[in-house]
Amino acid sequence: MRDDAARIRALIKRWADAVHQGDLDAVVADHAEDIVMSDVPPRHDGVRGLAAWRKVWPPFFDRQARGASFAIVSLPVTAGDEVAFAHAPLRCGSPQDPAGHPELRLRLTPGLRKQGGRWVVAHEHHSIPHTG
Amino acid sequence: MRDDAARIRALIKRWADAVHQGDLDAVVADHAEDIVMSDVPPRHDGVRGLAAWRKVWPPFFDRQARGASFAIVSLPVTAGDEVAFAHAPLRCGSPQDPAGHPELRLRLTPGLRKQGGRWVVAHEHHSIPHTG
Repeated sequence: MRDDAARIRALIKRWADAVHQGDLDAVVADHAEDIVMSDVPPRHDGVRGLAAWRKVWPPFFDRQARGASFAIVSLPVTAGDEVAFAHAPLRCGSPQDPAGHPELRLRLTPGLRKQGGRWVVAHEHHSIPHTG
Repeated sequence: MRDDAARIRALIKRWADAVHQGDLDAVVADHAEDIVMSDVPPRHDGVRGLAAWRKVWPPFFDRQARGASFAIVSLPVTAGDEVAFAHAPLRCGSPQDPAGHPELRLRLTPGLRKQGGRWVVAHEHHSIPHTG
Protein backbone atom coordinates (compact mmCIF):
# COMPACT_ATOMS: atom_id res chain seq x y z
CA MET A 1 0.00 0.00 0.00
CA ARG A 2 3.00 2.26 0.48
CA ASP A 3 3.83 1.77 -3.22
CA ASP A 4 0.21 2.51 -4.11
CA ALA A 5 0.26 5.79 -2.16
CA ALA A 6 3.52 6.81 -3.87
CA ARG A 7 2.06 5.99 -7.30
CA ILE A 8 -1.06 8.02 -6.55
CA ARG A 9 0.97 10.99 -5.31
CA ALA A 10 2.99 10.88 -8.54
CA LEU A 11 -0.21 10.65 -10.61
CA ILE A 12 -1.76 13.71 -8.91
CA LYS A 13 1.48 15.72 -9.25
CA ARG A 14 1.67 14.85 -12.98
CA TRP A 15 -1.97 15.93 -13.35
CA ALA A 16 -1.40 19.26 -11.56
CA ASP A 17 1.65 19.97 -13.74
CA ALA A 18 -0.40 19.16 -16.85
CA VAL A 19 -3.17 21.56 -15.73
CA HIS A 20 -0.61 24.29 -15.19
CA GLN A 21 0.93 23.65 -18.61
CA GLY A 22 -2.42 23.39 -20.41
CA ASP A 23 -1.72 19.87 -21.70
CA LEU A 24 -5.24 18.43 -22.05
CA ASP A 25 -4.19 14.90 -23.07
CA ALA A 26 -2.00 14.63 -19.97
CA VAL A 27 -4.77 16.13 -17.81
CA VAL A 28 -7.21 13.37 -18.79
CA ALA A 29 -4.66 10.50 -19.01
CA ASP A 30 -5.38 8.92 -15.61
CA HIS A 31 -9.09 9.61 -15.25
CA ALA A 32 -11.91 7.06 -15.53
CA GLU A 33 -14.40 7.10 -18.39
CA ASP A 34 -17.21 7.33 -15.80
CA ILE A 35 -15.64 10.10 -13.70
CA VAL A 36 -18.04 12.24 -11.66
CA MET A 37 -16.73 15.66 -10.67
CA SER A 38 -18.16 18.20 -8.25
CA ASP A 39 -16.80 21.35 -9.88
CA VAL A 40 -16.46 24.84 -8.42
CA PRO A 41 -19.38 26.32 -10.46
CA PRO A 42 -22.93 25.14 -9.76
CA ARG A 43 -23.85 22.00 -11.64
CA HIS A 44 -26.22 20.07 -9.43
CA ASP A 45 -25.60 16.69 -10.98
CA GLY A 46 -21.86 17.22 -11.31
CA VAL A 47 -19.73 16.85 -14.41
CA ARG A 48 -20.34 13.29 -15.59
CA GLY A 49 -18.11 11.29 -17.91
CA LEU A 50 -14.69 11.92 -19.40
CA ALA A 51 -16.04 13.76 -22.47
CA ALA A 52 -17.79 16.35 -20.28
CA TRP A 53 -14.84 16.51 -17.90
CA ARG A 54 -12.44 17.37 -20.78
CA LYS A 55 -14.51 20.49 -21.50
CA VAL A 56 -13.95 21.88 -18.00
CA TRP A 57 -10.28 22.60 -18.57
CA PRO A 58 -9.68 24.97 -21.53
CA PRO A 59 -11.07 28.08 -19.72
CA PHE A 60 -8.92 27.17 -16.76
CA PHE A 61 -5.86 26.81 -19.00
CA ASP A 62 -6.42 30.38 -20.19
CA ARG A 63 -6.24 31.55 -16.59
CA GLN A 64 -3.04 29.57 -16.04
CA ALA A 65 -1.51 31.11 -19.16
CA ARG A 66 -2.18 34.56 -17.68
CA GLY A 67 0.01 33.76 -14.67
CA ALA A 68 -2.15 31.86 -12.20
CA SER A 69 -0.51 29.12 -10.17
CA PHE A 70 -1.67 25.54 -9.65
CA ALA A 71 0.59 24.37 -6.84
CA ILE A 72 -0.18 21.52 -4.47
CA VAL A 73 0.32 22.58 -0.84
CA SER A 74 0.16 19.10 0.72
CA LEU A 75 -0.85 15.69 -0.55
CA PRO A 76 -1.80 13.06 2.02
CA VAL A 77 -3.03 9.83 0.35
CA THR A 78 -5.00 7.02 2.01
CA ALA A 79 -4.63 3.93 -0.19
CA GLY A 80 -5.97 0.38 0.06
CA ASP A 81 -5.29 -2.33 -2.51
CA GLU A 82 -8.15 -1.30 -4.81
CA VAL A 83 -9.56 2.03 -3.60
CA ALA A 84 -7.91 5.24 -2.42
CA PHE A 85 -8.57 8.89 -1.74
CA ALA A 86 -6.37 11.95 -1.35
CA HIS A 87 -6.66 15.44 0.05
CA ALA A 88 -4.83 18.00 -2.04
CA PRO A 89 -5.24 21.70 -1.24
CA LEU A 90 -3.73 23.84 -4.03
CA ARG A 91 -2.76 27.46 -4.44
CA CYS A 92 -4.44 28.65 -7.62
CA GLY A 93 -4.31 32.45 -7.35
CA SER A 94 -2.64 34.92 -9.66
CA PRO A 95 0.27 36.26 -7.60
CA GLN A 96 1.03 39.10 -10.04
CA ASP A 97 -2.57 40.31 -10.21
CA PRO A 98 -3.99 41.93 -7.05
CA ALA A 99 -7.46 41.67 -8.62
CA GLY A 100 -6.92 38.00 -9.44
CA HIS A 101 -7.34 36.60 -5.95
CA PRO A 102 -3.59 36.18 -5.34
CA GLU A 103 -4.17 33.96 -2.29
CA LEU A 104 -6.94 31.80 -3.77
CA ARG A 105 -6.98 28.19 -2.61
CA LEU A 106 -8.62 25.25 -4.31
CA ARG A 107 -9.56 22.30 -2.16
CA LEU A 108 -9.29 19.05 -4.11
CA THR A 109 -10.39 15.56 -3.03
CA PRO A 110 -9.73 12.85 -5.63
CA GLY A 111 -11.23 9.37 -5.20
CA LEU A 112 -9.40 6.60 -7.08
CA ARG A 113 -9.88 2.95 -7.95
CA LYS A 114 -7.48 0.40 -9.40
CA GLN A 115 -8.54 -0.70 -12.85
CA GLY A 116 -6.59 -3.11 -15.06
CA GLY A 117 -3.66 -2.87 -12.64
CA ARG A 118 -3.40 0.92 -12.66
CA TRP A 119 -4.92 3.72 -10.60
CA VAL A 120 -7.53 6.01 -12.16
CA VAL A 121 -9.40 8.97 -10.69
CA ALA A 122 -13.12 8.10 -10.56
CA HIS A 123 -14.37 11.03 -8.49
CA GLU A 124 -13.03 14.52 -8.02
CA HIS A 125 -14.36 17.21 -5.71
CA HIS A 126 -13.08 20.74 -6.40
CA SER A 127 -14.16 23.71 -4.33
CA ILE A 128 -13.12 27.09 -3.13
CA PRO A 129 -14.10 28.37 0.32
CA HIS A 130 -17.38 30.23 0.57
CA THR A 131 -17.27 33.48 2.48
CA GLY A 132 -20.95 34.48 2.10
CA MET B 1 -16.99 -5.27 -0.83
CA ARG B 2 -20.72 -5.16 -1.47
CA ASP B 3 -21.29 -5.52 2.29
CA ASP B 4 -18.75 -2.77 2.92
CA ALA B 5 -20.53 -0.40 0.55
CA ALA B 6 -23.87 -1.15 2.24
CA ARG B 7 -22.36 -0.53 5.68
CA ILE B 8 -20.89 2.77 4.52
CA ARG B 9 -24.16 3.90 2.99
CA ALA B 10 -25.93 3.11 6.28
CA LEU B 11 -23.22 5.02 8.21
CA ILE B 12 -23.58 8.14 6.06
CA LYS B 13 -27.39 8.03 6.26
CA ARG B 14 -27.23 7.72 10.09
CA TRP B 15 -24.84 10.69 10.13
CA ALA B 16 -27.08 12.85 7.93
CA ASP B 17 -30.10 12.03 10.12
CA ALA B 18 -28.08 12.93 13.23
CA VAL B 19 -27.08 16.28 11.67
CA HIS B 20 -30.71 17.02 10.86
CA GLN B 21 -31.78 16.10 14.41
CA GLY B 22 -28.92 18.02 16.08
CA ASP B 23 -27.59 14.92 17.86
CA LEU B 24 -23.89 15.75 18.26
CA ASP B 25 -22.83 12.43 19.81
CA ALA B 26 -24.36 10.55 16.87
CA VAL B 27 -22.82 13.02 14.40
CA VAL B 28 -19.28 12.26 15.64
CA ALA B 29 -19.82 8.52 16.37
CA ASP B 30 -18.20 7.17 13.18
CA HIS B 31 -15.49 9.75 12.57
CA ALA B 32 -11.74 9.27 13.09
CA GLU B 33 -9.80 11.10 15.82
CA ASP B 34 -7.51 12.50 13.10
CA ILE B 35 -10.26 13.60 10.70
CA VAL B 36 -9.38 16.40 8.29
CA MET B 37 -12.34 18.33 6.89
CA SER B 38 -12.48 20.89 4.08
CA ASP B 39 -15.42 22.93 5.33
CA VAL B 40 -17.60 25.39 3.42
CA PRO B 41 -16.08 28.52 5.09
CA PRO B 42 -12.46 29.42 4.42
CA ARG B 43 -10.01 27.65 6.68
CA HIS B 44 -6.88 27.07 4.66
CA ASP B 45 -5.58 24.17 6.68
CA GLY B 46 -8.98 22.56 7.09
CA VAL B 47 -10.66 21.49 10.30
CA ARG B 48 -8.23 19.08 11.94
CA GLY B 49 -9.05 16.51 14.60
CA LEU B 50 -12.30 15.33 16.14
CA ALA B 51 -12.34 18.00 18.87
CA ALA B 52 -12.23 20.81 16.27
CA TRP B 53 -14.67 18.98 14.03
CA ARG B 54 -17.27 18.73 16.85
CA LYS B 55 -17.33 22.54 17.06
CA VAL B 56 -18.42 22.88 13.42
CA TRP B 57 -21.89 21.50 14.05
CA PRO B 58 -23.83 23.51 16.68
CA PRO B 59 -24.33 26.58 14.40
CA PHE B 60 -25.48 24.24 11.67
CA PHE B 61 -27.93 22.54 14.07
CA ASP B 62 -29.51 25.94 14.74
CA ARG B 63 -30.14 26.30 11.02
CA GLN B 64 -31.68 22.81 10.88
CA ALA B 65 -33.94 23.65 13.83
CA ARG B 66 -35.24 26.66 11.86
CA GLY B 67 -36.48 24.37 9.07
CA ALA B 68 -33.52 23.67 6.80
CA SER B 69 -33.27 20.24 5.23
CA PHE B 70 -30.29 17.89 5.15
CA ALA B 71 -31.41 15.28 2.64
CA ILE B 72 -29.07 13.04 0.66
CA VAL B 73 -29.93 13.13 -3.06
CA SER B 74 -27.78 10.15 -4.14
CA LEU B 75 -25.08 8.11 -2.47
CA PRO B 76 -22.73 6.12 -4.68
CA VAL B 77 -19.98 4.41 -2.66
CA THR B 78 -16.71 2.97 -3.97
CA ALA B 79 -15.37 0.54 -1.37
CA GLY B 80 -12.29 -1.64 -1.18
CA ASP B 81 -11.43 -3.88 1.77
CA GLU B 82 -9.73 -1.13 3.77
CA VAL B 83 -10.37 2.22 2.06
CA ALA B 84 -13.49 3.76 0.53
CA PHE B 85 -14.95 7.02 -0.68
CA ALA B 86 -18.45 8.24 -1.39
CA HIS B 87 -20.12 11.07 -3.26
CA ALA B 88 -23.16 12.43 -1.47
CA PRO B 89 -24.85 15.58 -2.78
CA LEU B 90 -27.41 16.87 -0.26
CA ARG B 91 -30.26 19.34 -0.30
CA CYS B 92 -29.65 21.69 2.61
CA GLY B 93 -31.86 24.69 1.83
CA SER B 94 -34.72 26.11 3.84
CA PRO B 95 -37.79 25.33 1.74
CA GLN B 96 -40.11 27.57 3.81
CA ASP B 97 -37.80 30.58 3.66
CA PRO B 98 -37.40 32.27 0.25
CA ALA B 99 -34.44 34.21 1.69
CA GLY B 100 -32.86 31.00 3.04
CA HIS B 101 -31.61 29.59 -0.26
CA PRO B 102 -34.45 27.07 -0.65
CA GLU B 103 -32.62 25.16 -3.38
CA LEU B 104 -29.18 25.15 -1.75
CA ARG B 105 -27.09 22.05 -2.40
CA LEU B 106 -24.16 20.79 -0.39
CA ARG B 107 -21.63 18.60 -2.14
CA LEU B 108 -20.13 16.04 0.26
CA THR B 109 -17.23 13.67 -0.39
CA PRO B 110 -16.36 11.44 2.59
CA GLY B 111 -13.16 9.36 2.57
CA LEU B 112 -13.21 6.34 4.88
CA ARG B 113 -10.80 3.75 6.23
CA LYS B 114 -11.43 0.51 8.12
CA GLN B 115 -10.07 0.69 11.64
CA GLY B 116 -10.44 -2.07 14.23
CA GLY B 117 -12.90 -3.85 11.94
CA ARG B 118 -15.23 -0.89 11.45
CA TRP B 119 -15.46 1.97 8.97
CA VAL B 120 -14.63 5.51 10.09
CA VAL B 121 -14.68 8.77 8.14
CA ALA B 122 -11.10 10.12 7.97
CA HIS B 123 -11.62 12.93 5.46
CA GLU B 124 -14.65 14.98 4.58
CA HIS B 125 -14.96 17.61 1.87
CA HIS B 126 -18.02 19.87 2.12
CA SER B 127 -18.70 22.62 -0.38
CA ILE B 128 -21.41 24.64 -2.00
CA PRO B 129 -21.16 25.76 -5.62
CA HIS B 130 -19.46 29.07 -6.24
CA THR B 131 -21.26 31.42 -8.59
CA GLY B 132 -18.77 34.32 -8.49
